Amino acid sequence: MKGKKIGIFIFVLVLTAVFFIGIQNIKISYAGAGEGLLPEQWWPSKWGADDEKGSFNLITPERVKAALKVVKTGKIYRLSIPYENGTMPLPWGRTYSLTIPGVPSGGPYGKNGIVWNDEFIVGQLGQVGTQYDGLGHIGYKDKNGVFRWYNGRALAEESGANSQGLKKNGVEKQGPCITRGVLIDAAGLKGVKAMQAGELITLKDLETCIKKAGIAPIQEGDAVLFNTGWIEYWSDHKKFNGGCPGVSIEVMKYLAKKNVSIVGADTWPALDPVPGEDPDVTFPAHCYMECVNGIGQLQNLDLRQLAKDRVYEFLFIFVPVPFVGATGSPSDTIAIQ
Amino acid sequence: MKGKKIGIFIFVLVLTAVFFIGIQNIKISYAGAGEGLLPEQWWPSKWGADDEKGSFNLITPERVKAALKVVKTGKIYRLSIPYENGTMPLPWGRTYSLTIPGVPSGGPYGKNGIVWNDEFIVGQLGQVGTQYDGLGHIGYKDKNGVFRWYNGRALAEESGANSQGLKKNGVEKQGPCITRGVLIDAAGLKGVKAMQAGELITLKDLETCIKKAGIAPIQEGDAVLFNTGWIEYWSDHKKFNGGCPGVSIEVMKYLAKKNVSIVGADTWPALDPVPGEDPDVTFPAHCYMECVNGIGQLQNLDLRQLAKDRVYEFLFIFVPVPFVGATGSPSDTIAIQ
Amino acid sequence: MKGKKIGIFIFVLVLTAVFFIGIQNIKISYAGAGEGLLPEQWWPSKWGADDEKGSFNLITPERVKAALKVVKTGKIYRLSIPYENGTMPLPWGRTYSLTIPGVPSGGPYGKNGIVWNDEFIVGQLGQVGTQYDGLGHIGYKDKNGVFRWYNGRALAEESGANSQGLKKNGVEKQGPCITRGVLIDAAGLKGVKAMQAGELITLKDLETCIKKAGIAPIQEGDAVLFNTGWIEYWSDHKKFNGGCPGVSIEVMKYLAKKNVSIVGADTWPALDPVPGEDPDVTFPAHCYMECVNGIGQLQNLDLRQLAKDRVYEFLFIFVPVPFVGATGSPSDTIAIQ
Amino acid sequence: MKGKKIGIFIFVLVLTAVFFIGIQNIKISYAGAGEGLLPEQWWPSKWGADDEKGSFNLITPERVKAALKVVKTGKIYRLSIPYENGTMPLPWGRTYSLTIPGVPSGGPYGKNGIVWNDEFIVGQLGQVGTQYDGLGHIGYKDKNGVFRWYNGRALAEESGANSQGLKKNGVEKQGPCITRGVLIDAAGLKGVKAMQAGELITLKDLETCIKKAGIAPIQEGDAVLFNTGWIEYWSDHKKFNGGCPGVSIEVMKYLAKKNVSIVGADTWPALDPVPGEDPDVTFPAHCYMECVNGIGQLQNLDLRQLAKDRVYEFLFIFVPVPFVGATGSPSDTIAIQ
Repeated sequence: MKGKKIGIFIFVLVLTAVFFIGIQNIKISYAGAGEGLLPEQWWPSKWGADDEKGSFNLITPERVKAALKVVKTGKIYRLSIPYENGTMPLPWGRTYSLTIPGVPSGGPYGKNGIVWNDEFIVGQLGQVGTQYDGLGHIGYKDKNGVFRWYNGRALAEESGANSQGLKKNGVEKQGPCITRGVLIDAAGLKGVKAMQAGELITLKDLETCIKKAGIAPIQEGDAVLFNTGWIEYWSDHKKFNGGCPGVSIEVMKYLAKKNVSIVGADTWPALDPVPGEDPDVTFPAHCYMECVNGIGQLQNLDLRQLAKDRVYEFLFIFVPVPFVGATGSPSDTIAIQ
Repeated sequence: MKGKKIGIFIFVLVLTAVFFIGIQNIKISYAGAGEGLLPEQWWPSKWGADDEKGSFNLITPERVKAALKVVKTGKIYRLSIPYENGTMPLPWGRTYSLTIPGVPSGGPYGKNGIVWNDEFIVGQLGQVGTQYDGLGHIGYKDKNGVFRWYNGRALAEESGANSQGLKKNGVEKQGPCITRGVLIDAAGLKGVKAMQAGELITLKDLETCIKKAGIAPIQEGDAVLFNTGWIEYWSDHKKFNGGCPGVSIEVMKYLAKKNVSIVGADTWPALDPVPGEDPDVTFPAHCYMECVNGIGQLQNLDLRQLAKDRVYEFLFIFVPVPFVGATGSPSDTIAIQ
Repeated sequence: MKGKKIGIFIFVLVLTAVFFIGIQNIKISYAGAGEGLLPEQWWPSKWGADDEKGSFNLITPERVKAALKVVKTGKIYRLSIPYENGTMPLPWGRTYSLTIPGVPSGGPYGKNGIVWNDEFIVGQLGQVGTQYDGLGHIGYKDKNGVFRWYNGRALAEESGANSQGLKKNGVEKQGPCITRGVLIDAAGLKGVKAMQAGELITLKDLETCIKKAGIAPIQEGDAVLFNTGWIEYWSDHKKFNGGCPGVSIEVMKYLAKKNVSIVGADTWPALDPVPGEDPDVTFPAHCYMECVNGIGQLQNLDLRQLAKDRVYEFLFIFVPVPFVGATGSPSDTIAIQ
Repeated sequence: MKGKKIGIFIFVLVLTAVFFIGIQNIKISYAGAGEGLLPEQWWPSKWGADDEKGSFNLITPERVKAALKVVKTGKIYRLSIPYENGTMPLPWGRTYSLTIPGVPSGGPYGKNGIVWNDEFIVGQLGQVGTQYDGLGHIGYKDKNGVFRWYNGRALAEESGANSQGLKKNGVEKQGPCITRGVLIDAAGLKGVKAMQAGELITLKDLETCIKKAGIAPIQEGDAVLFNTGWIEYWSDHKKFNGGCPGVSIEVMKYLAKKNVSIVGADTWPALDPVPGEDPDVTFPAHCYMECVNGIGQLQNLDLRQLAKDRVYEFLFIFVPVPFVGATGSPSDTIAIQ
């Protein structure tokens, strides 16, 4: 028992020392472009210490009303790639399967002989195909080596006793994102069908795209989608998953500073190029946008039709499926011209 | 071989006879209210013999633009009940499970120590919780005793060799439904928290609701949602699944005649009351709306907040998840005031 | 109503005609090696019209006792390939996934801080990896074009209203198979590491193997396993699934005549070579052994160690997992020397 | 940087202090019956620091041969309850579902018109129904508050980067358990159909059962199964999951000391009574048998027929399905008289 007391004493001593020395001095040091991007403490969030909604707080009634005014023709563009049994590139050993039990799955009943079919779907549904990374998906190491998510939530706070869904930052907390959408047609700017793996969209590229499009600059609450052309390789799973273009770290900072509500692209990691700009930092946009700034990312969008029709500004509608405790969501993302 | 020839001869004979006698005379006969509701041949559909989109054909750019004008405040109402592990009433032995593999599911990588969580979801996802019955869900017996779905598709045409998704009438063919929404607050009209199981909303009820709401009558392309209050029993699975109120057969006919684009309610079978109006016909609204008229149904909506705030007319947004070959879809259904 | 009566009259006329002409004359005709193998009516089974156990009826207490006497050293050989996430060759778009929810999946509880992990497994578990084809797996067309399974069960009899498991011929009806096992080392006989795709093991090959092994001939109730060496290609999914060696139709007939209790091999279709001996008949051993004779097949066994150690006779133990209504089963198949 | 150095210095200081004071003094203290049962360090295991097989190391060729000699009649008893869709009591929110995709799932092919059915199974398969707790299932807190499993493996060593199966202690490492089986018919001894929840089987009960059975005492390597009668409540999920009888802590110690190879019972936690003997220790048998002694437990066995037929000694066969990285396994457990 005596040993225990001494242990506790020393533990308190260390805590006090750490407090006075100032833990903020213990930095994650990167030599490269990622330097200074990722803070060692990123909470409380700008939306408050209890927030689980992140940038979707920007989706106010006023912003919704303003976004509706963008509509010119009423034409709907579907930006998701349909979820198909066995044909989607599945990274990290993920799974997707849809089967129809029975055929018919139920019936017949009554004199009318009613029958029905159901579909049995399995997989990491928020993380396969066209999908949205919510605020419970990405975490990174804080100054004490603890893995933390948006608003500083550690694993124990995120997940419950038997892990049947996240307790915090579940995607059902965020709700729909209905706002003005902007297409940055980087592939179009560069005059290519698809950019190269690791190729960067710079801030200058972004500004040139906006200018050429003749639309208002990026505003607070916007949905900003990047067309890199990488979706051309969708059917070539090895090529598609093997790398991709993305945005520069400068652009990540710009988008966060502008307070956009959501970002998206036609690649599997959205903003992050692979290989990345800084070899020391893995998926910086994931950490910086999602954890630090509470801005989710839409991945594997198909933006070709929008680009082809030169629709650079639109009403953007993304409605996550409210799976309680999910880290992300499948959905059909919509642009209305 | 001789026997085979004679067999074929007789078969042709029968076919010819049947043709001349007129197969339309061989009727499914119901004595009750359902009489004449369900034709024995319901194809080709009004949208053509190849159609797989049904009433969503009504979602034209013009109708979308008109619907946007309904918005007054920009306030978003979420009408779906979040999909929760183990708490939803699951009829017919269906399944729903969400687990988080690993915690974290991946990582850490890089000096930043990025980690991530995924969600592994399984179940009859288009047919549990708040869900949409698409055009591949319900079939019934035709005049020859063959089970057929929307546009007359039989099982063999619907489903493929190994049933990894419907070949025809999959929900991914329909696309989003964005239109004017109308709330029929039947529970409010009757001054009850919840209507009774088997209780009917009559055409007169519907018309009174519209009148009291002070909104324009039901129009072509509208989304019509019925608040019966039944959702109050959501947590009492036995009570909830054991029956429910619904609309009269007269209302079903009225809605189909008006060419609405979608219907919905706060019960598990949407329009159909349980027990039904005609004991001989099981789920007549399912057969009549979905198979015959190509109008899908949203089930298990939570319309209480809309009713409480007296929001009777709104911009309606339902975006099915484009699971290829699925019979329905989960989603967050949205009303914008 | 008059038309209906005439229709019924003609229908009865046809039925009568068909009866007298004799439907048994309408044969499935094959020109090749498969001719005469598959009867157009294969029921009632030799085990009676109600039987769902097939050749496992041979696993009597006497046979079990006799089989135990075969054991010499007590050394156990494990013949199944462990089921591994993402590495097994999955034919026909099948799925296999194992994840660990939570980590830990539950706890901690009590002063001892107990925690636990579970595993969440999904897939066509009776039909992936090393697996057993039970009597509800394979059906074929009868003389009337109706698909029927073992003991003549048609789809409607096999599957229930909402297809949550087969009603008849489920693998749980069969029970364990504990009997004398025999290894036919065909690859060893031919002096190759692996036989060729489409290459046949003839009856002479089988007899030579038995003779060289110095064991008693194949007896009623035996488990007969064929080592073709094809398992060498396990990791090369395209090669493995693209074809395989098998046994001649003559051997199929021989095994059925001998009343063996189970057969197995180190290929995905067990006895059937791909391409098959007769181009008109797809998977004849599947139809002949499983449907007609009620003899199930073990597939994707790893028999290399048995062959290497020259263990040609052994105590064979296969215990299917009693998943109610399943068509097959995963399992660790065991040989005891 | 200076602060960092001081922090490291103090950290090293604490480590040194802890080392000298002796961490072994910091004990988990229980006042009750569980006192002294659970060590704070339980590794390396008696089978060596690298072992993942635990008590199944006892299944030597000699022991297998000896066990075969126990067989008298050759009669097989199946001790597992078939896994049935929707009818099994599922504790802790676990899932089980079996559906048949398609019906048929594949085909027809060839002139023979071959078709097939598959089964799509999902769930925590090693932890639902009759199941085996392997060595990766249960962990508890060590002296430093770290959760550790058999042989001291912590979470990070157990689970891989994306948690698609345990890296250590997976059930596929253990292999089959074929040995002498012993039935302790406690319900029979007490003359009841089912013992009470929380009721204990004492060491004296165990010894009396053995004596009355007229069989040899429990020996090293035995499989020891307890019939409490609790399985009578299988269909009453609330009652069944709400508690159960079990063995006293004295019996747990006795069984571990005797070096049995496996234990089992007809309750969901096997040896552990609920409520437990010591309120401070949750599931002591789980921690003591599985973590400390590497002895797995079979749960939810149906031992009624064995008890009825007074089969107290038998050849015991349990073959886990070698799911790589699984914490347990379903299976049909077999007794041969």
